[in-house]
Amino acid sequence: MAETLIKVDLAQSPYENEQVHNRWHPDIPIAVWVKPGDDFVLETYDWTGGAIKNDDSADDVRDVDLSTVHFLSGPVGVEGAEPGDLLVVDLLDIGAKQESLWGFNGFFSKQNGGGFLTDHFPHAQKSIWDFEGMFTKSRHIPGVRYAGLIHPGLIGCLPDQAMLDEWNRREQSLIDTEPARVPPLANPPFSQTAHMGTLSGVARDKAAAEGARTVPPREHGGNCDIKDLSRGSRVFFPVYVKGGGLSVGDLHFSQGDGEITFCGAIEMAGWVHMRVSVIKQGMAKYGIKNPIFKPSPIVPNYKDYLIFEGISVDEQGKQHYLDVHIAYRQACLNAIEYLKKFGYSGAQAYSILGTAPVQGHISGVVDIPNACATLWLPTEIFDFDIQPGADGPIKHIKGDVDMPVSYDL
Amino acid sequence: MAETLIKVDLAQSPYENEQVHNRWHPDIPIAVWVKPGDDFVLETYDWTGGAIKNDDSADDVRDVDLSTVHFLSGPVGVEGAEPGDLLVVDLLDIGAKQESLWGFNGFFSKQNGGGFLTDHFPHAQKSIWDFEGMFTKSRHIPGVRYAGLIHPGLIGCLPDQAMLDEWNRREQSLIDTEPARVPPLANPPFSQTAHMGTLSGVARDKAAAEGARTVPPREHGGNCDIKDLSRGSRVFFPVYVKGGGLSVGDLHFSQGDGEITFCGAIEMAGWVHMRVSVIKQGMAKYGIKNPIFKPSPIVPNYKDYLIFEGISVDEQGKQHYLDVHIAYRQACLNAIEYLKKFGYSGAQAYSILGTAPVQGHISGVVDIPNACATLWLPTEIFDFDIQPGADGPIKHIKGDVDMPVSYDL
Amino acid sequence: MAETLIKVDLAQSPYENEQVHNRWHPDIPIAVWVKPGDDFVLETYDWTGGAIKNDDSADDVRDVDLSTVHFLSGPVGVEGAEPGDLLVVDLLDIGAKQESLWGFNGFFSKQNGGGFLTDHFPHAQKSIWDFEGMFTKSRHIPGVRYAGLIHPGLIGCLPDQAMLDEWNRREQSLIDTEPARVPPLANPPFSQTAHMGTLSGVARDKAAAEGARTVPPREHGGNCDIKDLSRGSRVFFPVYVKGGGLSVGDLHFSQGDGEITFCGAIEMAGWVHMRVSVIKQGMAKYGIKNPIFKPSPIVPNYKDYLIFEGISVDEQGKQHYLDVHIAYRQACLNAIEYLKKFGYSGAQAYSILGTAPVQGHISGVVDIPNACATLWLPTEIFDFDIQPGADGPIKHIKGDVDMPVSYDL
Amino acid sequence: MAETLIKVDLAQSPYENEQVHNRWHPDIPIAVWVKPGDDFVLETYDWTGGAIKNDDSADDVRDVDLSTVHFLSGPVGVEGAEPGDLLVVDLLDIGAKQESLWGFNGFFSKQNGGGFLTDHFPHAQKSIWDFEGMFTKSRHIPGVRYAGLIHPGLIGCLPDQAMLDEWNRREQSLIDTEPARVPPLANPPFSQTAHMGTLSGVARDKAAAEGARTVPPREHGGNCDIKDLSRGSRVFFPVYVKGGGLSVGDLHFSQGDGEITFCGAIEMAGWVHMRVSVIKQGMAKYGIKNPIFKPSPIVPNYKDYLIFEGISVDEQGKQHYLDVHIAYRQACLNAIEYLKKFGYSGAQAYSILGTAPVQGHISGVVDIPNACATLWLPTEIFDFDIQPGADGPIKHIKGDVDMPVSYDL
Repeated sequence: MAETLIKVDLAQSPYENEQVHNRWHPDIPIAVWVKPGDDFVLETYDWTGGAIKNDDSADDVRDVDLSTVHFLSGPVGVEGAEPGDLLVVDLLDIGAKQESLWGFNGFFSKQNGGGFLTDHFPHAQKSIWDFEGMFTKSRHIPGVRYAGLIHPGLIGCLPDQAMLDEWNRREQSLIDTEPARVPPLANPPFSQTAHMGTLSGVARDKAAAEGARTVPPREHGGNCDIKDLSRGSRVFFPVYVKGGGLSVGDLHFSQGDGEITFCGAIEMAGWVHMRVSVIKQGMAKYGIKNPIFKPSPIVPNYKDYLIFEGISVDEQGKQHYLDVHIAYRQACLNAIEYLKKFGYSGAQAYSILGTAPVQGHISGVVDIPNACATLWLPTEIFDFDIQPGADGPIKHIKGDVDMPVSYDL
Repeated sequence: MAETLIKVDLAQSPYENEQVHNRWHPDIPIAVWVKPGDDFVLETYDWTGGAIKNDDSADDVRDVDLSTVHFLSGPVGVEGAEPGDLLVVDLLDIGAKQESLWGFNGFFSKQNGGGFLTDHFPHAQKSIWDFEGMFTKSRHIPGVRYAGLIHPGLIGCLPDQAMLDEWNRREQSLIDTEPARVPPLANPPFSQTAHMGTLSGVARDKAAAEGARTVPPREHGGNCDIKDLSRGSRVFFPVYVKGGGLSVGDLHFSQGDGEITFCGAIEMAGWVHMRVSVIKQGMAKYGIKNPIFKPSPIVPNYKDYLIFEGISVDEQGKQHYLDVHIAYRQACLNAIEYLKKFGYSGAQAYSILGTAPVQGHISGVVDIPNACATLWLPTEIFDFDIQPGADGPIKHIKGDVDMPVSYDL
Repeated sequence: MAETLIKVDLAQSPYENEQVHNRWHPDIPIAVWVKPGDDFVLETYDWTGGAIKNDDSADDVRDVDLSTVHFLSGPVGVEGAEPGDLLVVDLLDIGAKQESLWGFNGFFSKQNGGGFLTDHFPHAQKSIWDFEGMFTKSRHIPGVRYAGLIHPGLIGCLPDQAMLDEWNRREQSLIDTEPARVPPLANPPFSQTAHMGTLSGVARDKAAAEGARTVPPREHGGNCDIKDLSRGSRVFFPVYVKGGGLSVGDLHFSQGDGEITFCGAIEMAGWVHMRVSVIKQGMAKYGIKNPIFKPSPIVPNYKDYLIFEGISVDEQGKQHYLDVHIAYRQACLNAIEYLKKFGYSGAQAYSILGTAPVQGHISGVVDIPNACATLWLPTEIFDFDIQPGADGPIKHIKGDVDMPVSYDL
Repeated sequence: MAETLIKVDLAQSPYENEQVHNRWHPDIPIAVWVKPGDDFVLETYDWTGGAIKNDDSADDVRDVDLSTVHFLSGPVGVEGAEPGDLLVVDLLDIGAKQESLWGFNGFFSKQNGGGFLTDHFPHAQKSIWDFEGMFTKSRHIPGVRYAGLIHPGLIGCLPDQAMLDEWNRREQSLIDTEPARVPPLANPPFSQTAHMGTLSGVARDKAAAEGARTVPPREHGGNCDIKDLSRGSRVFFPVYVKGGGLSVGDLHFSQGDGEITFCGAIEMAGWVHMRVSVIKQGMAKYGIKNPIFKPSPIVPNYKDYLIFEGISVDEQGKQHYLDVHIAYRQACLNAIEYLKKFGYSGAQAYSILGTAPVQGHISGVVDIPNACATLWLPTEIFDFDIQPGADGPIKHIKGDVDMPVSYDL
């Protein structure tokens, strides 16, 4: 069995675990060193470090302090990896911790981060998903069951100082355009809740003051939330610092393209079994700026889809210019409306789109002024038939259970 | 053999064919009536009506008059279809015309419509693709060969007057925000080149003056350019006028998600064999606003992908807010840079992304401020290995052929 | 458009077409020569040369003279191909003739060839299948519709004299073990109905007297009836004579593994578009005795199967030793029994198994004394749900139509 | 976490575990009872109960006592299940035991069971396969790596007395035709090494004297060795005794169709997580004699195959009549010959065919006198390119390692 190089104790605060961190900074010390060719296991907290509970109240989702996320395991240093190399990572397997075979999905309050459809679902809501072997189902959303498309929402290498400075510069420029916005346009460094691994004292405070937040994906990968970067994938990461400094966290049992519910996919604590190797000077050889990857040979093989279209005209009938974001929102809203005809609440339908292996395609981006996005809903995940037919839909879902909601205080 | 209800003669101007039109308007007379359950064939021009030739000059792409497109075959009236119904269309098969077994792809000049990467490829360029049974390859882009993912870029029903008015209103509002923009934000009605089917005289002029242009996708479907709406698919279209008024055109032999080159996919003249039926009051029954569809059981089964990531930081390093359009552009640029390492020119690589069955996924749209988009490039379409490896890329493409370019006059 | 090098006129007897033959013999003259790299079209008769009609009587199936089959188009000579080479054949596309968009399936009388389940279905029966674009359905078997998995049942190169002699020797040895068997164990050369292409006179008679019958697959490929050798495949054929001498025929619109009904798949007249090239001395280089091939990237993508098991205990309860033939027969009988619960007649169910893209797997062949074979029935081909459930099956098929039967005279 | 109802200690003899048995008999007491709807875990020994070691000698394969196999965990009784019902089993997940992350494959000596190609590989040989997350590779067979297609080789319900009697009758009849054959045609009951669960004394001896051996698959399923009955599958088993009496064992990490090496697939100890439910009187409702099942939505998604054909002419050139067993053997021999051109030993190639997710199809069974079988070899499992090409094969495998062999004493 591969060695577990980083362990996490779910009963312990992640701040007490020195092999965990929640910011990006080149000064965060390597937590553990490995050699090219090694395979090993890293355990991880769920992205919130245990803030969300397996219960029937959404209070924890409403009240979560998002400045604390994401708790990552690492950084792992790979001997011989140097700036300009590509770090090749084989995700050999990923799983939940045996003592924690469940995950959560939810919507943040619009006051606390919101989500893709926050104007339609402005309140904190939560669903809990139980894992049964390779499958998951929820006591809050009847009639669906998925095979897991397990993946890390967040994985990547440490930036060097120049890249970090660039991140902070450009994101602050965006924030400056509308500093009071709720939710904000971006999150600047925030020292108070920063966990900088083994750094302490002045070194910790200096790094924490400029450490990049973990929410956005960036050149190094990071919080890409790409559902297809699943167990079995091979990923090629740019290396910016000596040893690479690979960190991982934010594991998902399943997610739809876009992670539209933001809180988030089906979020879980767990472990990642990986092997690492290095392509020397791979960034220049292949012209790599962002990570590239190859998908897994083992993923849920859903094939029968119902596909919803959306265009970049918003809910108020306003025409936007080739805006894929709005087009995808329309496709999602169309799918939610459709699912409601079978008895789901809007929140339940939204949560299905956020957690099931839904595909979101950028179908057309040149036919001015409308972008066209499509949402692919696998029909096999439902216990009943959701195909359209002459007889109209049947209300299989009776409305006797729904997702808990917690209103803003 | 199913009857061919609409024929087109490629040697004849589409303006002379009364079963063809190039605008959307409820007054365009039904060209041919069918019954629910009928299957039949409609022939179509390529979207430009023959303006682009099978030769080695891009002058025709540079000089094309885009006010004339798209030439559609129809409208087909289905007996008994009424507003509020869903028109069910089975795309039984689609093919090129035997006398025209080729297609074109190109980039419009930035002065004449541009495309997704028009700032990077501002000049008119063209590639010609020959069809060999189920496959296509190009004399201008060596080393690739695709199985056809044949589909209509454009298909949908006639709008009613209220919907038409709404289209014109909202698009004009957008145009008004920057009327002098090149390329324009949207295209208003334009009577001069309108072809309104059998309408003539005053009725033609009135309809032509307000007939919606065919470029954007809208609530009725229209120019969605969805590559997966391919032969074998079943589509459910909203019906707005008596008989539905289904028109189709803009056939593509193959296309990548986004149709990023705009001119366009691999564009061809051809025919569509379809069957129609009706779900009465289906729009309300299923809460349908835009078309929905089921994919075909027969599509190219490519499975080994190389996946490129892009985030919503633009080429100048400016941070944008959850902008999928920009993120997908970065993913495309990353893929182009990668392919150049194997010897392709940038234009050739761009054309591959526009024509191959490339997937474009909306991977993350909530991790402020960066959207994450992924471009999935099937590796099986290449004659050589494009996987990254320790030895670095081999320049299989020697640069002895490239796509013709025609500079603005 | 690729040139059609061999044409067939369905109104003309295949015996009058000099580019057609129905025996294997090295003396059959090359019908047409091509160069490596050429692509071209060959038209073909259905395997019986038109003996079976599109009507509602099985008399033609009962009365067919099986000594006349199969009518093949060719042989095609490829310049430079020599014994020991591999002939590489790309099946670029395959289709039905436009004037003949239908096919037939049937069971021969046990007195006239029989079939895999001839003891259970001893009488001549027939079903007719109409082609609608990429799909087929039958007026004799309601409730099913397949996407075409179009392929040549029969394709291969001419044997040399040594190989021909070997074929005749070994098959005669088998016949000699039970010469009076009905149906026979094998078919010896039979001069009277032999069609030897352009050969005539003494040369024809000599070749016809020893020309191998076309029914069995052999080292050269021949009548393999492999459903997956479908359009889009690439096949590597052993070459035995100068030029190769490639012939093709017996086109199938769709077939299940085993072609269990023998008469046969969905049999059709049509055309094959192919490209040829040569690997010099490929047989020795790769140790090739029988053809090898790569499947097509475009085939029906059915995925939801119901899988039936069979073991090598026969219908009378007799135990056989690792006999896959008997195990597969039991799996087929099990599937037929299952389908009858939904209202199909046994004959209809048998015909579905013979014509749908059913998979037959050799699942276990070492667990003495029972082989285990599995039959994979795609559930998506049915208009209704055939999954097992607590409520039991529903008789969707009402029994108002069945396959015509013709009893032995 | 689901409860583990049966545990096995790999350091303990399976004969000492009362929840294990190695024969089929209705008198074997139910080891544990569950309710419909329950999910639970059963641990299992490898099929030999630990006789084969993770080392580099094949002595253990040569010397194994095959009268002891297979060690099964169970029987599990399901409350309310009665003869004539169908027991529905969801295989929620399957895995290796954490302390035993490896498996074995081998060939038995022809003197001790042999295998599918025992005349070609008559000596005991062994390969060891290490599990790395979802993948496996072997130190004895370089250049290949598979994603696991994990499944139980053996699963089924207890027979009733009538069925047991029938099994014994028919198998003895076969044995009687050639009692001295090596290897034998079948294995009769053998009391000495029988493990009858908790039965003891006279009851044990009586049952042991007539308990059916576990090697062959039979009506109840049993040792089907169907690779596609993998984790994620749903299986419908006939019930013959009160409670069903479901037992499982013989877990495989991966296997090719046919399990041609007999010893066997990649054999492992592990656990099965399953859920059970019941369809009352399901056998009659659906006409079920043998189990049926639905495949998993998560299996290795290999798609690029090289397909080898075989016909029923044996290695000596003798013609057999529609013998799929011989045809598949030829296809296997053809594939082995092919792989040897890349440097593999015959034994290594044979072991790849036995362990990789190879498909074996019954392609043609009616074209007298030759059956046609096809072996589908996934090309993606190799570290190098095995496609045929003009340049001929490259010897990537250097021959510096091979599988251990142990000659008969």
